[in-house]
Amino acid sequence: MYQLALFGAGRIGKVHASTVAKHPQCRLSAVVDVNAEAAQALATQYGARVARAEEVFADKTIDGILICSATNTHADLIEAGARAGKVIFCEKPIDLGLERIQTCLNVVAEHKAKLFVGFNRRFDRNFRQLKESLAAGEIGKPELLIITSRDPGPPPISYIQVSGGLYKDMMIHDLDMITWLMDEMPIAISAHGSCMVDPEIGQAGDVDTATVTLEFASGALGIITNSRRTSYGYDQRIEVHGDNGMLQAGNILENTVVKSNPDGVKGAKPVYFFLERYMDSYAKELEAFMSIFDGAEPEVDGSAGERSLRLAEAALESLRTGVKVRL
Amino acid sequence: MYQLALFGAGRIGKVHASTVAKHPQCRLSAVVDVNAEAAQALATQYGARVARAEEVFADKTIDGILICSATNTHADLIEAGARAGKVIFCEKPIDLGLERIQTCLNVVAEHKAKLFVGFNRRFDRNFRQLKESLAAGEIGKPELLIITSRDPGPPPISYIQVSGGLYKDMMIHDLDMITWLMDEMPIAISAHGSCMVDPEIGQAGDVDTATVTLEFASGALGIITNSRRTSYGYDQRIEVHGDNGMLQAGNILENTVVKSNPDGVKGAKPVYFFLERYMDSYAKELEAFMSIFDGAEPEVDGSAGERSLRLAEAALESLRTGVKVRL
Amino acid sequence: MYQLALFGAGRIGKVHASTVAKHPQCRLSAVVDVNAEAAQALATQYGARVARAEEVFADKTIDGILICSATNTHADLIEAGARAGKVIFCEKPIDLGLERIQTCLNVVAEHKAKLFVGFNRRFDRNFRQLKESLAAGEIGKPELLIITSRDPGPPPISYIQVSGGLYKDMMIHDLDMITWLMDEMPIAISAHGSCMVDPEIGQAGDVDTATVTLEFASGALGIITNSRRTSYGYDQRIEVHGDNGMLQAGNILENTVVKSNPDGVKGAKPVYFFLERYMDSYAKELEAFMSIFDGAEPEVDGSAGERSLRLAEAALESLRTGVKVRL
Amino acid sequence: MYQLALFGAGRIGKVHASTVAKHPQCRLSAVVDVNAEAAQALATQYGARVARAEEVFADKTIDGILICSATNTHADLIEAGARAGKVIFCEKPIDLGLERIQTCLNVVAEHKAKLFVGFNRRFDRNFRQLKESLAAGEIGKPELLIITSRDPGPPPISYIQVSGGLYKDMMIHDLDMITWLMDEMPIAISAHGSCMVDPEIGQAGDVDTATVTLEFASGALGIITNSRRTSYGYDQRIEVHGDNGMLQAGNILENTVVKSNPDGVKGAKPVYFFLERYMDSYAKELEAFMSIFDGAEPEVDGSAGERSLRLAEAALESLRTGVKVRL
Repeated sequence: MYQLALFGAGRIGKVHASTVAKHPQCRLSAVVDVNAEAAQALATQYGARVARAEEVFADKTIDGILICSATNTHADLIEAGARAGKVIFCEKPIDLGLERIQTCLNVVAEHKAKLFVGFNRRFDRNFRQLKESLAAGEIGKPELLIITSRDPGPPPISYIQVSGGLYKDMMIHDLDMITWLMDEMPIAISAHGSCMVDPEIGQAGDVDTATVTLEFASGALGIITNSRRTSYGYDQRIEVHGDNGMLQAGNILENTVVKSNPDGVKGAKPVYFFLERYMDSYAKELEAFMSIFDGAEPEVDGSAGERSLRLAEAALESLRTGVKVRL
Repeated sequence: MYQLALFGAGRIGKVHASTVAKHPQCRLSAVVDVNAEAAQALATQYGARVARAEEVFADKTIDGILICSATNTHADLIEAGARAGKVIFCEKPIDLGLERIQTCLNVVAEHKAKLFVGFNRRFDRNFRQLKESLAAGEIGKPELLIITSRDPGPPPISYIQVSGGLYKDMMIHDLDMITWLMDEMPIAISAHGSCMVDPEIGQAGDVDTATVTLEFASGALGIITNSRRTSYGYDQRIEVHGDNGMLQAGNILENTVVKSNPDGVKGAKPVYFFLERYMDSYAKELEAFMSIFDGAEPEVDGSAGERSLRLAEAALESLRTGVKVRL
Repeated sequence: MYQLALFGAGRIGKVHASTVAKHPQCRLSAVVDVNAEAAQALATQYGARVARAEEVFADKTIDGILICSATNTHADLIEAGARAGKVIFCEKPIDLGLERIQTCLNVVAEHKAKLFVGFNRRFDRNFRQLKESLAAGEIGKPELLIITSRDPGPPPISYIQVSGGLYKDMMIHDLDMITWLMDEMPIAISAHGSCMVDPEIGQAGDVDTATVTLEFASGALGIITNSRRTSYGYDQRIEVHGDNGMLQAGNILENTVVKSNPDGVKGAKPVYFFLERYMDSYAKELEAFMSIFDGAEPEVDGSAGERSLRLAEAALESLRTGVKVRL
Repeated sequence: MYQLALFGAGRIGKVHASTVAKHPQCRLSAVVDVNAEAAQALATQYGARVARAEEVFADKTIDGILICSATNTHADLIEAGARAGKVIFCEKPIDLGLERIQTCLNVVAEHKAKLFVGFNRRFDRNFRQLKESLAAGEIGKPELLIITSRDPGPPPISYIQVSGGLYKDMMIHDLDMITWLMDEMPIAISAHGSCMVDPEIGQAGDVDTATVTLEFASGALGIITNSRRTSYGYDQRIEVHGDNGMLQAGNILENTVVKSNPDGVKGAKPVYFFLERYMDSYAKELEAFMSIFDGAEPEVDGSAGERSLRLAEAALESLRTGVKVRL
């Protein structure tokens, strides 16, 4: 039974605490959070203790750490974890700056630490099935990829001010997804964006409606469309057109009930947001993380975090200049 | 170019006149109807002449007749057509009485006439695809068949009073469909029915909501459900469960537009009624009828008309007695 | 925190043990099973102790019992629980004989015990949504109900020999569902059945392909179709046709991936069996059971168990005689 | 009854000849084609005569002309028609050069001629329903539009060499569609393209896989993706995401049959190509054209042809430079 410590007792920290509780090979032994009350509540619920960060790193009985704290603490905690010999899970992003990511990954490499970055959507059973079918050549070689990714509503302006903006906090998931699906880095990227949802988002220097087009060396073209708001729940779909067919992964609906009446045929809308849609993927992600203890390499490592941020930076440059950025 | 005469210039007569106009091997040369005005209008539209029945049967240039007149004229016209050597298309039913059908079919046989009975749904491309998949063994042997057949609204009471009622005017299509799909006559039938749509229908001695269960010698069970009214258009579906899979044929929708909003995901409803749903099948039916002139046997002959009425009679007996009727 | 004891450490017992573990208001304190090994394994996993039945009933700290043992032990355990003042959850059926059920329910009534019978499908979110829409009058009054319920494969013959057969072990769920949806008992029932899946099932005196038609006082007609085997997973659907629309609840699919290629457009099949389909409903069922401790009446009580068995008995009589049975 | 003359007896000419035959207010009186045999065959089928162009323009009994001949004859025929006082229908494009289009439209204007340009997809019942819902504000203001438009297979290289390439012969339909839906011209356009289908297409200087992104003044972003080849039929879909919902128009499938088996749930693929998909839209387009004779202005006039070509030219410039083109 491996002992895990959790940094961050907020929304995503609670998700990971619950998946740890259901996993037969690990238990939560410590919770760290600047909010003492939140730390205590979560610790109590899962039979763990509240601890300070230094205690966690000094505690030889703790095998791994889950970093779910604020973004600006990620790189420091990863480095501390690497030095203390912990197996490390870190929510994306590693950092908002490419340089900081690079020095952090150097420390990880230096200590031969195992770092798993939380791109949880790779573990969604629908996207994973699509990836497997694609990798198995079921539709031949990919030619056009379209990722639709739209949140039900925008985050608070205060979040946007520190998150790095839509391209770094939201599209970064889709940039990881598209390179994972293609198993190849794009060679060029163009971006378009506008502010349609809330003028305050524009005043904060961000966009809320955005697209990018990516070119791959094979000639394949990829498109991502994002919106900070839908009226119909969380919209997360992927379509890949290949030379021998098309694969599409759709939304999970609230239920399967369909009503036919004079107005038409009406079914339920997609589930509300990422907790409902991806709860299952978090459990599968933890399983993948735990397999590191059995000797596996991290399925999603630090390079994934760096690569996606690099693409987000290039997209922002294209958005600013109106020119395609070559990578 | 074969010359055809049409008996009956009503709704279904017009449908056949229009399919004849588009068929390259035939033309409409005469229209017969007790309503002189209706006959004239249709004749004018398609460049035909108005005629009396005797003239049609005496006219050697007329190769075939299409009987779309009132049900109680069908058997007489079939016999006259058979005696005159015409190739005969007759809308179902041949007659409402089994004895009359039998004497009529004897006349047809005696004159070696070709009689095609208008069970048009067999020519619907969806049901035909289902039949072909079933016959090809794609789901193994059939075990459970469920036919859903519901009209958008009830006919006038005056029609019900002369039609023979739901089992003979409406379910007869589904009874033909189920025996065609199974390629086998049932060995027993049970029926249930009630009056849910309009009390006047009950007062006229009929039901408006009805089911039958059929047993086949193979052990397969078939179910038909009928209603005289939906609020969402014409509902015509078939499901066949076999030992190696299931086939389902669904409705044709008004359009493919789907709207997602806070209320859910809404698409169009099924097309309104049989003219919209089966227009295509009428054209294919005419093609099948015309192939008789090339030497083919009628794809749907008089025995189909007789068999379906026999099943409807048995269903009515079961409905009355509450006992399963063995055939 | 309420203490619960579990009778039966088999497949369904494990399901309930896992839902208890996730529920914040209860914990598993004792496991009873004639198979000592199975009892111990489950007890260890959830931090409970192995106990004998008498110990459970004598233990004042135990608030409720979950009866998941063999069917022939249900009525005795319910009675013992009622006498010991426990809140009782019992998997269906209460017993295979109506008389035994009656004497058991008398004991429950005498001791004013709370008995919750495990018709878990009522807690499936899809069927519940359909029920709520129906009860809210969204499609007007129901006229035709069709329940499709097909297992992926038949149980062992040894199970069929003791289960009471398809009508009592399988269709009983659907009979409960249809009366729950209609909120009304049927007034007549007809049954048809045959042996299509495995001749051994027929030799054991049972059918494996079955239908019933039910008549309700309102005139509504209900149909249930069952099969012991599909090739495409667990098929659990409901359709209700009302005077102002239609409601349909469909299957849960393995994933949302759809592949288009020269063969057509292919999606995933329904999830395999009841554990996959109804896991969520078991959790909701436990919530409903736990609300009894807060003073609620059992949402599904003993009368539901009795009523469904009564309908199954009537269906068997109709199957034998070919005559509609009035209730 | 209006008399129409048809220029061009090829594939699309035949389509229009057949819709004319079914329209109650017009008839085909003359067919013009350099291929005398093709002209004669079509004329015979519809009771028309073969004529030379000059005869058509000189014939006062001819009210309108349908230009379905080779692209490089369009502008000359339009001008001749305008001068002769005919009501003119012309298949898109008017010409491959913007200057030629301009001089042509000047002649049309000078003679106050009525010119209808054949963007038939606007008359597809699915896209029209989407447009109507959008215009009615059913999803609020549009924010993201995605048009998917993929042919089943590439045209011959000889066609590509004279057509102007993918952007001018194929995407031009989608560029018309997107401006029609938005009811607004874009303010900027970016393009990406590659050659994935056939290297010969690349050698001919064209791409076969292409995307554009359009910016509208409102901030809305539009995306078009094109491919010269699918393996699953003709793929023609539109999605519009608005501030209060999403509209999607999907493909028309070959039939509604769905097969469930151990491999999954499989339905039919989209219909093969534009004749199957848009036959209905050609009939509706002719109705719209014929309404000009009743005094209506052309629903799709010359400016639509010019505007779409202008966008295609801008897309080609962006494709060449990698820079967003402002309009």
